[in-house]
Amino acid sequence: MSPARLETFADGVFAIAATLLILTVDGAVRGEGIGLSASLTHAWPAYVGYVVSFLTIGIMWVNHHTIMSLVVRVDRRFLIANLGLLMCIAFVPFPTRLIAENIRGAGAESAALAYGFTLTATAIFFNAVWFYAAVGRRLLRADADPRVVAGITRTYRVGPWIYLGATLVAFASATASAILYLAITALYIFESSIFGGRETIPD
Amino acid sequence: MSPARLETFADGVFAIAATLLILTVDGAVRGEGIGLSASLTHAWPAYVGYVVSFLTIGIMWVNHHTIMSLVVRVDRRFLIANLGLLMCIAFVPFPTRLIAENIRGAGAESAALAYGFTLTATAIFFNAVWFYAAVGRRLLRADADPRVVAGITRTYRVGPWIYLGATLVAFASATASAILYLAITALYIFESSIFGGRETIPD
Amino acid sequence: MSPARLETFADGVFAIAATLLILTVDGAVRGEGIGLSASLTHAWPAYVGYVVSFLTIGIMWVNHHTIMSLVVRVDRRFLIANLGLLMCIAFVPFPTRLIAENIRGAGAESAALAYGFTLTATAIFFNAVWFYAAVGRRLLRADADPRVVAGITRTYRVGPWIYLGATLVAFASATASAILYLAITALYIFESSIFGGRETIPD
Amino acid sequence: MSPARLETFADGVFAIAATLLILTVDGAVRGEGIGLSASLTHAWPAYVGYVVSFLTIGIMWVNHHTIMSLVVRVDRRFLIANLGLLMCIAFVPFPTRLIAENIRGAGAESAALAYGFTLTATAIFFNAVWFYAAVGRRLLRADADPRVVAGITRTYRVGPWIYLGATLVAFASATASAILYLAITALYIFESSIFGGRETIPD
Repeated sequence: MSPARLETFADGVFAIAATLLILTVDGAVRGEGIGLSASLTHAWPAYVGYVVSFLTIGIMWVNHHTIMSLVVRVDRRFLIANLGLLMCIAFVPFPTRLIAENIRGAGAESAALAYGFTLTATAIFFNAVWFYAAVGRRLLRADADPRVVAGITRTYRVGPWIYLGATLVAFASATASAILYLAITALYIFESSIFGGRETIPD
Repeated sequence: MSPARLETFADGVFAIAATLLILTVDGAVRGEGIGLSASLTHAWPAYVGYVVSFLTIGIMWVNHHTIMSLVVRVDRRFLIANLGLLMCIAFVPFPTRLIAENIRGAGAESAALAYGFTLTATAIFFNAVWFYAAVGRRLLRADADPRVVAGITRTYRVGPWIYLGATLVAFASATASAILYLAITALYIFESSIFGGRETIPD
Repeated sequence: MSPARLETFADGVFAIAATLLILTVDGAVRGEGIGLSASLTHAWPAYVGYVVSFLTIGIMWVNHHTIMSLVVRVDRRFLIANLGLLMCIAFVPFPTRLIAENIRGAGAESAALAYGFTLTATAIFFNAVWFYAAVGRRLLRADADPRVVAGITRTYRVGPWIYLGATLVAFASATASAILYLAITALYIFESSIFGGRETIPD
Repeated sequence: MSPARLETFADGVFAIAATLLILTVDGAVRGEGIGLSASLTHAWPAYVGYVVSFLTIGIMWVNHHTIMSLVVRVDRRFLIANLGLLMCIAFVPFPTRLIAENIRGAGAESAALAYGFTLTATAIFFNAVWFYAAVGRRLLRADADPRVVAGITRTYRVGPWIYLGATLVAFASATASAILYLAITALYIFESSIFGGRETIPD
């Protein structure tokens, strides 16, 4: 299987998971008639959740592309690691709904934990995919730039810890945990626009 | 990342968002037995909303393709602007349901505002995508026709104002606002079929 | 826009519309516990509806590909006709649910009419797409085989009448109408497997 | 139709069916407030069902690709067999929900049977697709390795019997049947990672 075909399948899962997020918003607003305006205002955590999860999935799609642009061939183990990763990505709409519905109530802690563990698992699978490909340059292109490879290794290694940290904060404060999820995404978007913003992304 | 890959991902989001619109119609008709015929008739705003939003997303898909046909490379900022745009496109099914369910009742104003602000935000992101690529011809192909570039710039600049105008009309009359959304789409289809209808669209 | 890009977008809509059909089956079986077995049996019209609509969309996908394989370029009017066609295809899951839920009850006539009018509209848009491309060979490849072109023209011309006929039968008997929808699909599959079954489909 | 185009359409159905599985999980957790934590724990069969069905669809996607990599051309009968296969794949989210909701209750047997018959039918259609292409090497590439062809034939022939066996176990014990479905997927992943794990998958 060419890396391109795997990437096409993966892109499908990324695009569908991101687009299904709207069902969270749609489910959050059920008031009719005179109550619609209040219902629309009350549903603000659903909008925030939509934006954060959409951008998170979007960033992961870019990161997945960056990996695939360095990979020259695909074997069965790499494929299975990718299936695990996609399984996590497609899971994201579920904890997004939980957090949107519960962040203001008694279920906030459970919801924040569910969201955090999903993203931690996703970050772990990103590491599985990357390290399987990169260790000993097993699946990498011969011309893959060693500095780029080392840079990805450095960044990915901390990913699960950052998300695990934000998740554990939920035991103290679910709100703080949710703000951290938002901040991680916002920081990535910000950093990536200011520095590196004009870098051409590898084909 | 090649413009082609970004476009494939974007096309997925456009296609899914458009196809998910049917859930609005599906949710609007719940009568069974003898009441089905009345329920089907009563749901007419859902059919109108389906057609208008499907065509609106379809037109935006064509416009997005026109931009991408002029773009020669993709950088991170351009990618993030595109994610913002796709986030708006995938949002469209939600206010479509609101307007289909509420246009005849007390929630009409809120629904028309939600629809209008979504399309205004979409038009703003279209501008962000376009101007980021086009200012100083930053990401444009060397052979991009200056008249085509100037034409897009002219058209896009007014887009948010047109949608904002139609949105603000909702404070006076939600029905008038909804008719304007329909008229904008109908005009585009009409204009595009009469003039320019035989133009080959750029690859 | 190259015919290939339009076809990729269309393929997305075909694939999503077909896959969303499962929501009809899913909604039809809600019994739990001891009642599940009865609920599963009782839902048989949903399975039939799923199979008929899935195969109908599948056949339309093949037919759309056959058109696109003869088309050499795309203009705005052709694109808009295609959007209309896709709008009908994406609509199919809705009347499929109606017919699955209502074919045994008082709503059978309305449901059969809704299904039939949707497929009649789809057949009309297929004609719009085809004749716009084929009249005067406007958008056809120079090497498009005239016998193939004439054959498609002959077949498509009768399509709307066949579906309209089956639809109008619903005024006499909704069940007869539903059996005709099934028979049209079954005949196509059968005919296409016996004759023409070993023909290579054009690229 | 080129095998590549059929594969693109099929990949769309695989990706959407897999991603729609999250609706099963989403529907299983409806508690709010203080009850959310208990609801999340209670829904564990939905998580297991999600993982098993996602990986099963993922494995089928890889297997479908392996077939398509050996196929040089597509005729109408092959296409129709593929539509039947995709119809089964897109069906998987439905029995996954049944099993997730009912495995602990009185509906367990019905749910396990529904899941098993779906996968048995899928395995039968895989055989239809493969044997139609492979008998007399009807649609295979001239350079298709005879050992690979014989290997697939050997493996596919037992597929439906394995799933039928696991299905019939449900008459004795639905739980045992469900564990067998999980075990079949786990074994495949395990076997495929240990042996053959470093094999490059054919383009």
